[in-house]
Amino acid sequence: MTDTFTLDPRLDADTAGIIDLPLSTVRLMRDARYPWVILIPRQPSLVELTDLTRDDQIALMDETAHVSASLKAETGCPKLNVAAIGNIVRQLHVHVVARFEGDAAWPGPVWGKHPPLAYDAEKEAALIASLRARLS
Amino acid sequence: MTDTFTLDPRLDADTAGIIDLPLSTVRLMRDARYPWVILIPRQPSLVELTDLTRDDQIALMDETAHVSASLKAETGCPKLNVAAIGNIVRQLHVHVVARFEGDAAWPGPVWGKHPPLAYDAEKEAALIASLRARLS
Repeated sequence: MTDTFTLDPRLDADTAGIIDLPLSTVRLMRDARYPWVILIPRQPSLVELTDLTRDDQIALMDETAHVSASLKAETGCPKLNVAAIGNIVRQLHVHVVARFEGDAAWPGPVWGKHPPLAYDAEKEAALIASLRARLS
Repeated sequence: MTDTFTLDPRLDADTAGIIDLPLSTVRLMRDARYPWVILIPRQPSLVELTDLTRDDQIALMDETAHVSASLKAETGCPKLNVAAIGNIVRQLHVHVVARFEGDAAWPGPVWGKHPPLAYDAEKEAALIASLRARLS
């Protein structure tokens, strides 16, 4: 428990920064298997959605919808998966994953299925830049 | 695509009704491995969260928080998993699952892990009655 927000070290290692929205920092999961974005509300000691005030729950829904629409526009994916799980990393974070029939985990969930596959560095940078522009 | 809401037949078969909230019908997943509730907004042709109006996204967040708090109070679970996935059943539905360290899928996600384990009929009825009272 701390009084200031610090990104969990495991989330930090597994993701790359895209943009800060008013409530959440938005990061790309470094797994080239799936276009996969995470929102982390920048408040200390959050675990469950219900740890947020109602106003911040609404802000998180707004930001999740914004990320969802942006990721769908970016990828053309036929399905999104949106989830707050946190069994391994407890710091509250919301996954928004672009899913395609026939992707590496389809139709199952992505979590715990495969180890991350590193992006080509140029492709990762281009995806981050494009998502940042859409989310700005 | 239809003009009226009809519960997806697979969701209907896998779940039992608990209560109707203003936006969503709330149902118990018939899997005794995990206390697991599903919210299904009663509108036709919904697939993604972003298919809801903003007011209804907020209503869904409110109802998800209400179900989350009720399921946590009912079970004493140390963690909740909240997710809208829909890779198999496309009708928009939000899972709220009470998770315990050492449960049948821990720390992985519950989806696609094990076939459902039937409840003892009395226990199922008691859990539904208790959740209905908490959600009323």
